[in-house]
Amino acid sequence: MPQTAAVNRRFVLAAHPQGLPTPQDVRLETGPVPEPGDGQVLLRTLYLSLDPYMRNLMDEVGPVYAPAVPLGEAMVGGTVNRVVASNHPDFKPGDLVLGNAGWQDYALSDGSDLTALGDMAEPSHALGGLGMPGFTAYVGLLDLGQPKPGDTVVVAAATGAVGAVVGQIAKLKGARVVAIVGGEDKRRYALDELGFDVCLDRRDPDFAAQLAQACPDGIDVYFENVGGEVFDAVLPLLNIGARVPVCGIIAHYNDKTAPAGPDRVPLLMSAILQKRIKVQGFIIFDHYEQRFEAFRRDMAEWIGSGALKLREDRVDGLENAPEAFIGLLQGRNFGKLVVRVGED
Amino acid sequence: MPQTAAVNRRFVLAAHPQGLPTPQDVRLETGPVPEPGDGQVLLRTLYLSLDPYMRNLMDEVGPVYAPAVPLGEAMVGGTVNRVVASNHPDFKPGDLVLGNAGWQDYALSDGSDLTALGDMAEPSHALGGLGMPGFTAYVGLLDLGQPKPGDTVVVAAATGAVGAVVGQIAKLKGARVVAIVGGEDKRRYALDELGFDVCLDRRDPDFAAQLAQACPDGIDVYFENVGGEVFDAVLPLLNIGARVPVCGIIAHYNDKTAPAGPDRVPLLMSAILQKRIKVQGFIIFDHYEQRFEAFRRDMAEWIGSGALKLREDRVDGLENAPEAFIGLLQGRNFGKLVVRVGED
Repeated sequence: MPQTAAVNRRFVLAAHPQGLPTPQDVRLETGPVPEPGDGQVLLRTLYLSLDPYMRNLMDEVGPVYAPAVPLGEAMVGGTVNRVVASNHPDFKPGDLVLGNAGWQDYALSDGSDLTALGDMAEPSHALGGLGMPGFTAYVGLLDLGQPKPGDTVVVAAATGAVGAVVGQIAKLKGARVVAIVGGEDKRRYALDELGFDVCLDRRDPDFAAQLAQACPDGIDVYFENVGGEVFDAVLPLLNIGARVPVCGIIAHYNDKTAPAGPDRVPLLMSAILQKRIKVQGFIIFDHYEQRFEAFRRDMAEWIGSGALKLREDRVDGLENAPEAFIGLLQGRNFGKLVVRVGED
Repeated sequence: MPQTAAVNRRFVLAAHPQGLPTPQDVRLETGPVPEPGDGQVLLRTLYLSLDPYMRNLMDEVGPVYAPAVPLGEAMVGGTVNRVVASNHPDFKPGDLVLGNAGWQDYALSDGSDLTALGDMAEPSHALGGLGMPGFTAYVGLLDLGQPKPGDTVVVAAATGAVGAVVGQIAKLKGARVVAIVGGEDKRRYALDELGFDVCLDRRDPDFAAQLAQACPDGIDVYFENVGGEVFDAVLPLLNIGARVPVCGIIAHYNDKTAPAGPDRVPLLMSAILQKRIKVQGFIIFDHYEQRFEAFRRDMAEWIGSGALKLREDRVDGLENAPEAFIGLLQGRNFGKLVVRVGED
């Protein structure tokens, strides 16, 4: 069933996932298109962003940085929307906006969370390289990772929404980029299209040895967005003074219990101490006010000059969002995952 | 046997310790007092500093930041010395200097590692509050911890060489200091003499609950110099944006193997991410050039005005160094541990 003007389709959280989500953890419901009240805007969704952080919001107790989705409520998510109707002075029907309509065709907003997109050529990029994932890459790499020319920068999920931008900005700053992906098609793309210096497949049995060989001068910056075995292979290679911005640990989002021992916290703390490593977590919502304008300016320049490429993995139809999201958590996407919910 | 002009006593590393060092891991040897060659200075030791980092240098493979002590060689250590004889233009007999003579009565130096102390009133303080441990506290707290007025700062080993200075500087900067010690005498001293707001005994069975109660607004800065159960109790209380300078993990220096599981690295990384925590290791040797002058100036002012107090745990006689060192690793010292090796 495609998007219509008469019905609102939405996916609600049906159950808190046990480990990797299943299609049954969300439920498709239909209902009337809501009516905007005083000061409200009615939005129609063109594109829905699917991002790993959403997995954390499906747990009964959500993460520190955002409220959990209640059972029976619509799954949240960033969206590109057309304004259908507006009782808000700043928006009029037909406007293209960045919003947070979630996994549904229609949503209401009081306007405070909307950003006008004007006549943006590729509006879905506002959900990817020009939006939250790209901004995450920019702040994490430049402000926290601080790569210097000649530094070795290691980035995992290196063809994903965040990783691909991290690696390309690192190259622009003169660093040597060792990329990590899952799969030969992604490996070829990372080398041939994104221009990374080395690209390894994390699923190779001797991945850790390959990484050591690929980093003969150690690792100066590790952009942490996966955790798990990749982090284990990176840790012994970190240089004195290394920086580790932490933007995600997707390998662990589906953990039901902590991994088996031994407890390596003392080992990690010892490495942090001896090598004077800085490990710093960040949540991108904290940084918009100070850094978003610089990000937009720089990204526009890099994309305009062809120095930075964005790749989208576009899925057609809201009904396919659950399967695409589960694939994202397994690394099956190839580029920024976006669902085309409705025609423009 | 006291220090004499005729014989050099020295402790050499006899064996790599298995876990906590034993007195048999070092061996007292005697030999002739060495003769200074061209450009060399002969030093006589007045005070020897004993510090936790020395434990790491006793392992077969030393830490990243310093070479291991070879078997049969003298144990290393910072010292306050009188110059006995000099073939170096910058030093003359009788000069009081800060050096690295190690665990022995006499040593030679080429002068490059010596700092003139002039007619310092309390020369042993050059090994404590006015030296490496005090500087560690200063840089770690101010540059990395960055406490703001009203912040809750937690410091462990809070009557020790580093911790006592951390806590007192934090108080001077307007923070609320929650101190952790082992033993009632230290607890009284931390409250009554050092003026910390709360002081807990880490050996109390309900220590973690006490810490939670003592930090109703969470923890903004945790100065990590112990690790172990203290860190475990601190971690869930860290606030969004908390800073964790890591200067030591003494609780683990004697670990023979990693602690039993589960592996809590993902848990730690998840906390770092969600709470945007900065965990940063540092080794004080990196910071002398940029920050030592500011440290000396500030400390002189604070000590001069009585705003900052230094407490020394002084042991008499080089022969007692091994036992004192083992006690240090068990938290038995009360203040900066210094061995008075020879009379001035």
